[in-house]
Amino acid sequence: MESNGTRTLRRAAAAALLFAVLVAMLTPASTQAAAAVDGHADPIAPVALALAVILMSAKLGGDLAVRLGQPAVLGELVIGVVLGNLGLLGFHGFEAWSADGSTIDMLARIGVLILLFEVGLESTVAQMMKVGVSSLLVAVVGVAAPFALGWAVGAWLLPQHTVYVHAFLGATLTATSVGITARVLKDLNRSKSPEARVILGAAVIDDVLGLVILAAVAGVIAAADAGTTISQGAIAWILGKAALFLLGALTLGLFLSKRLFRFASKLRSLGVLLATGLSFCFVLAYLSSEIGLAPIVGAFAAGLILEDLHYRDFVDRGEHSLEELTHTISQFLVPIFFVLMGMRTDLSSFGEPGVLALAAVLTVAAIAGKQVCGLGVVGRGFDRLAIGIGMVPRGEVGLIFADIGSKLAVQGEKIIDQATFSAVVIMVIVTTMVTPPALKWSLGRKSSG
Amino acid sequence: MESNGTRTLRRAAAAALLFAVLVAMLTPASTQAAAAVDGHADPIAPVALALAVILMSAKLGGDLAVRLGQPAVLGELVIGVVLGNLGLLGFHGFEAWSADGSTIDMLARIGVLILLFEVGLESTVAQMMKVGVSSLLVAVVGVAAPFALGWAVGAWLLPQHTVYVHAFLGATLTATSVGITARVLKDLNRSKSPEARVILGAAVIDDVLGLVILAAVAGVIAAADAGTTISQGAIAWILGKAALFLLGALTLGLFLSKRLFRFASKLRSLGVLLATGLSFCFVLAYLSSEIGLAPIVGAFAAGLILEDLHYRDFVDRGEHSLEELTHTISQFLVPIFFVLMGMRTDLSSFGEPGVLALAAVLTVAAIAGKQVCGLGVVGRGFDRLAIGIGMVPRGEVGLIFADIGSKLAVQGEKIIDQATFSAVVIMVIVTTMVTPPALKWSLGRKSSG
Repeated sequence: MESNGTRTLRRAAAAALLFAVLVAMLTPASTQAAAAVDGHADPIAPVALALAVILMSAKLGGDLAVRLGQPAVLGELVIGVVLGNLGLLGFHGFEAWSADGSTIDMLARIGVLILLFEVGLESTVAQMMKVGVSSLLVAVVGVAAPFALGWAVGAWLLPQHTVYVHAFLGATLTATSVGITARVLKDLNRSKSPEARVILGAAVIDDVLGLVILAAVAGVIAAADAGTTISQGAIAWILGKAALFLLGALTLGLFLSKRLFRFASKLRSLGVLLATGLSFCFVLAYLSSEIGLAPIVGAFAAGLILEDLHYRDFVDRGEHSLEELTHTISQFLVPIFFVLMGMRTDLSSFGEPGVLALAAVLTVAAIAGKQVCGLGVVGRGFDRLAIGIGMVPRGEVGLIFADIGSKLAVQGEKIIDQATFSAVVIMVIVTTMVTPPALKWSLGRKSSG
Repeated sequence: MESNGTRTLRRAAAAALLFAVLVAMLTPASTQAAAAVDGHADPIAPVALALAVILMSAKLGGDLAVRLGQPAVLGELVIGVVLGNLGLLGFHGFEAWSADGSTIDMLARIGVLILLFEVGLESTVAQMMKVGVSSLLVAVVGVAAPFALGWAVGAWLLPQHTVYVHAFLGATLTATSVGITARVLKDLNRSKSPEARVILGAAVIDDVLGLVILAAVAGVIAAADAGTTISQGAIAWILGKAALFLLGALTLGLFLSKRLFRFASKLRSLGVLLATGLSFCFVLAYLSSEIGLAPIVGAFAAGLILEDLHYRDFVDRGEHSLEELTHTISQFLVPIFFVLMGMRTDLSSFGEPGVLALAAVLTVAAIAGKQVCGLGVVGRGFDRLAIGIGMVPRGEVGLIFADIGSKLAVQGEKIIDQATFSAVVIMVIVTTMVTPPALKWSLGRKSSG
């Protein structure tokens, strides 16, 4: 234990040293423009440096998180918060990276698509249909309760904001992070337990319900911003469009994707499986955006549709599976998203009155809202507490919602302002951090009892 | 044979159909801005569509090329030429993709770094040191002769342009494409023959020499553009800096990278090997840009430095090797580069007097310049003709040089203008296309004789 602690400290010191070297290396970058005569300043050079700093920071943060018994994603977020707030210490070299529309920002956006695609790949449409009444009920309760609680928290603590802000805040609390839950269950070697099956099934449905709510709320907000109100019929239309898109993608997609992959399996060049899989994901992301949904909905649907069967021809001849290939791409691009999310957390806004209070109440609402989930489980012998705990982590989906909210505005008023965004990030950090030890305790309690 | 031809035709028809569907899908994109009210137009949506079209086009082009006995890269280039010139048929939807600084352009630039890193990974510093006098002589002759011939062609056919243009044209003819040569030898199952070893060794040295020449020529041009001339001492300084950087990267890099990977192998989160390898590549790319070299020089050096030994710890515990991981990333990003290079070829400039003539003479110079290579081989029993042919393909490096040249200017005069760029692309296409059948013939002639 002692030696482990010392080692952790030594690693942390080494990490800090490496980090200082990287920062020092960055300094000449500012003088680069002046020295343009002595070389063709390729615009990729600063991007390459940014990628190196982000990737290594993500892995160092992930390592520290894992050593502290936490999921790696938490460390990526926290190291992002550190990088993004070096301005408080007078260092502003990293701030341009997180600017909207920068290359790093676009890479992060591609990263989210890949992540949702990867999560979708872990389940099939058939598995989704099979997960019983329990998963569906758990998901519905697990979306409705936090949505109502989040809305109430908004109305209570942000009375100066509009109802749109309150509703959006509710929406950010809805979706369980499939990735984090699955990862924690895997780490505990419990991913085949009955509780795990209910949690994972519910988390998947929960994601879809959350995304539909997001589409509806975002549609209402876009209409309000355009100065019009939106009729109940129009809300129903948004919900209907979303449902139609998902149903259409799932049915037509299943039909077409089989043919697409059968065709692709006959193409004689390298990398066809990855290119076809990614293209399928990108086209559905584009289509879902065209229809008024977030691109991540399409990416997730694409992942759900594709099954091992589709690309058996490729795997039979010794190629890697699409999951493996996608996982490698996600190892490169997904950390960029989480570090960038962390970087956008403005620590100075934590000093503002109300941010910490809002974060605390939001966190309580987020945890309490999912605890009623257990009531949805039909049948005996289930650890209802463990199921409620398993639904707690918000992770990437909550951040994606907050990110979308920060880009929406009604009559010039941002839906998710800097302070609220920071509060949501704190909520995500706490719900993510609380889950692994709590789930471990709850499942351990049952098996030993 | 008949059935094969029919199948090729059927595939081509299917490809054209798929392509038409994709184009039709693109049309609503132009009306998207008008319909912004009905959704949060995520800036990633058009990028996702562009990526899907580029990736699928690349694979379709690659398939056709492979069916015709050509390397896949050729098909990616040609399909890029088609996509980029749909404007001639009145369709301009794709033109924004190839704009300088667009997300697609930046992804392509990251793709080139990954490609050169990957090529570097295929060799080690020790292998480079071991390749005998033959490889070194072949490389020096194979760089000097095309450089002189290219310069002469420029002076002869482009008398209205400055000496900078002529010198740069010479530089674009210098470097053999390691990737294409290696791929062709592998396809012919001859990658362990003595000729193959000399060719691959020479191609590696050749790359470095070509990159050093590029650095020198680009430095001279940058100085000329700033209105100053560059002294011979300054040219020597550029060469010296390049040599110092490469030597420093190779020696210090070998020393530091071992420690870096030993440290990284102790980090407890997923994807550490890929993140560390890519970061190493990106940092060296950044440093080589800081020193006045092209970022690809650093990426290539990073690949040379890293050896299996560095990440044995990772592979021992069952992770994929860095080559495999990098190869997956390159499957995603590298085709973007080649398709984009094709897209930048302006077919309408082929009508201009002189472009086809320039292309024809450049191609002859490129092929002839490498045929004298065989004279550099020391010892008996080598197929000198096969070695000369093996050095012919210019591929990605020639395109990268032309791309850099198209972004350099002296007193407002572009170094590589649209017409010259098109001529270089034709030269690359022809040298790439000629090599596989010629090499097959030459090596077959020896073994059957």
